[in-house]
Amino acid sequence: MTNASIITIGDELLIGQVIDTNSAWIAQQLNKSGISVIRRVAVGDKWDEIWKALEEESTHADLILITGGLGPTADDITKPLLCKYFDGKMIVNTETLENVTYLFEKVFKRPITERNKKQAEVPDTCKVLINKRGTAPGMWFEKNGKVFVSMPGVPHEMKGIMEENVIPLLPEKFNLLSIAHRTLVTFGIGESMLADLIQDFENTLPAHIKLAYLPNYGIVRLRLSSMGVKKEEINSEIDALFIELQQLVNDYLVINEDIPMEKIVTNLLLQNNKTLGTAESCTGGYIAHLITSIPGVSKIFKGSIIAYSNEIKEQQLNVQQETLLNNGAVSEEVVIEMAMGLLHQLNTDYTIAVSGIMGPDGGSAEKPVGTVWVAVGSHASIITKQFHFRFDRQKNIQLTAMNALNLLRELLVKQADK
Amino acid sequence: MTNASIITIGDELLIGQVIDTNSAWIAQQLNKSGISVIRRVAVGDKWDEIWKALEEESTHADLILITGGLGPTADDITKPLLCKYFDGKMIVNTETLENVTYLFEKVFKRPITERNKKQAEVPDTCKVLINKRGTAPGMWFEKNGKVFVSMPGVPHEMKGIMEENVIPLLPEKFNLLSIAHRTLVTFGIGESMLADLIQDFENTLPAHIKLAYLPNYGIVRLRLSSMGVKKEEINSEIDALFIELQQLVNDYLVINEDIPMEKIVTNLLLQNNKTLGTAESCTGGYIAHLITSIPGVSKIFKGSIIAYSNEIKEQQLNVQQETLLNNGAVSEEVVIEMAMGLLHQLNTDYTIAVSGIMGPDGGSAEKPVGTVWVAVGSHASIITKQFHFRFDRQKNIQLTAMNALNLLRELLVKQADK
Repeated sequence: MTNASIITIGDELLIGQVIDTNSAWIAQQLNKSGISVIRRVAVGDKWDEIWKALEEESTHADLILITGGLGPTADDITKPLLCKYFDGKMIVNTETLENVTYLFEKVFKRPITERNKKQAEVPDTCKVLINKRGTAPGMWFEKNGKVFVSMPGVPHEMKGIMEENVIPLLPEKFNLLSIAHRTLVTFGIGESMLADLIQDFENTLPAHIKLAYLPNYGIVRLRLSSMGVKKEEINSEIDALFIELQQLVNDYLVINEDIPMEKIVTNLLLQNNKTLGTAESCTGGYIAHLITSIPGVSKIFKGSIIAYSNEIKEQQLNVQQETLLNNGAVSEEVVIEMAMGLLHQLNTDYTIAVSGIMGPDGGSAEKPVGTVWVAVGSHASIITKQFHFRFDRQKNIQLTAMNALNLLRELLVKQADK
Repeated sequence: MTNASIITIGDELLIGQVIDTNSAWIAQQLNKSGISVIRRVAVGDKWDEIWKALEEESTHADLILITGGLGPTADDITKPLLCKYFDGKMIVNTETLENVTYLFEKVFKRPITERNKKQAEVPDTCKVLINKRGTAPGMWFEKNGKVFVSMPGVPHEMKGIMEENVIPLLPEKFNLLSIAHRTLVTFGIGESMLADLIQDFENTLPAHIKLAYLPNYGIVRLRLSSMGVKKEEINSEIDALFIELQQLVNDYLVINEDIPMEKIVTNLLLQNNKTLGTAESCTGGYIAHLITSIPGVSKIFKGSIIAYSNEIKEQQLNVQQETLLNNGAVSEEVVIEMAMGLLHQLNTDYTIAVSGIMGPDGGSAEKPVGTVWVAVGSHASIITKQFHFRFDRQKNIQLTAMNALNLLRELLVKQADK
């Protein structure tokens, strides 16, 4: 089994100013290639720390992927360090210089500076991996049988180098095992209850097959993982177990793939050729944002009215002032009128309407922070549900969105079954 | 100087199914307490890997914070491992058992299972840190002069234990240095150009003061960092340098604090008591989401019309069919009409209107993917700007939002200067 370690470099990671999204993406790609990531390490822009990390990670892993620290500014010391670590001297790489010149002349349309040109210098002990999306090239080094790849930390530049250069080179260098994952999505059951439900299944799993619980905003995903030499054997064994697992959790099963809730809902709408619009108060556009993050949803998503103030609820969604006065903005009556108003205004087949108190302020004894009403439905019928979340503003917004999407999903599935 | 290392445990981190946001938050808190995070390591739910990580990180750091692996399910092996690593035996912690029982009876309102009760077992060699927000307690261990703290991976549970237990205990255990950071935000200048602009300043900085460049979606933040024994000396030295730096980058300076663009804009509106609404096509509610992520914005944010389809642009924002036909939905003419329609419909003081092609499909030779038109303004005047982004869908959406918010910010600042 080929093992990898990911080293991310940058002080910003250690003082918490930046969240590392690169490592998760890299791990996904390596997994697909049959390489297991066993460690991820973040270190600052400090010579000794980077040096020690290179030494240490090469005792853990066969492949060490390094991101960050390659910028043109003085705090970026990774390139000179790599030059020394791999006993090289700096030379100008002609292909990179052409790429940098091209980017400045044709794409950025800015004059090129000496500092930019220095991006084309690389240690002569590396194989250069051209970065078509930026100025800092990737670098592939080998030492004592281990492979080290250095890439810029800018996510879409790193992704380009991985896809075009690193992933294709891996099978040439390593004997790669097959890895198989099967993931299903459950909703509405906690991790412990789920564990009790499938405990016999879990206890009798073969040693080379792992089961993981991945809880996230009302969803618990279950993932079976296996690896081995023979791809077909691995796959047929895990497929049989996966069917068994689906039957065990059937009451809570959302889907037997690892796709996000917003995509499950939009796929159902696409299959039925139905349109959607949202009427959002407390989620402030977050549900619409989740939906429009998916390419190609313009076929089914028409738009939203974000009615953050009561005035907009009345004027744009035709919520009655009396309903607001008698029940408050966070009430079943108001979300029903918001849903009906949205269906009428945007003339969509389905809608999601939400109103709630996300915190930290705005709660009362009767309606504490975390109280949410959701309505979903069509011109034919609207269903509602109340929720009580107990978290911070961000998490309450996310939980509201997930539960609202799930409520619409349940309705769509039920109507398809008829 | 007290150094810390953060170990996050969980297979989900290594196969890329989860993005680690805990480490950034922990790093921020430790920094404020005068502790420098020098490394972050992620390992899977594997006995040997966790064990080795504990050994290795204790050679790097004085304080080792561990998150994850404490769930009630079989894949969570951290607690028995810590019990062995710190030579303890498992005992029931009465206070934790009371807390778990309370949570199930009063908060979750679900029957408590044996699996849940096991959460109250802890090694007898630890100091228990009560977790009021969940069932898995925090655990504080000491060994060979190093402190190890284990916490659950659920972010809001970890945060509660950090704030209520860990942070208050740190000054009792360590001689903490003072750390000072000063961060400013620039917009509209690349990292290299900025580096050229301030290179003399950077070259003459004292050795104990570091300058970092943090580029992100059109913004580059500059951060000066210093540490030392005497808090007042550190602060007065860094304050003087920070003023000098602000003067050098004055043409691109947005603000001399580390706050996000959406909060800069909403603060300006709050100061002037002006309201805002957005008319979004390609950003699909993302700008409204950014704004409504800030607590207390209901004073200035009334709502949005997400006009994803042309039909909604016409019906809800009164964009003329002729304008759409003659110029296309992604045009200066259309975003002006969207802005005017929004101001009229929602009766706000200011608006942001956006229309663009976010990709991966939908581009043409004349209007490639990444073409965006933005209009911002008030009933008195509207200004527009065209952008060409060259990234993937997610990044194009984020860049559009940041640039649109910045355009409104510039207008608000200009009008305030009058």
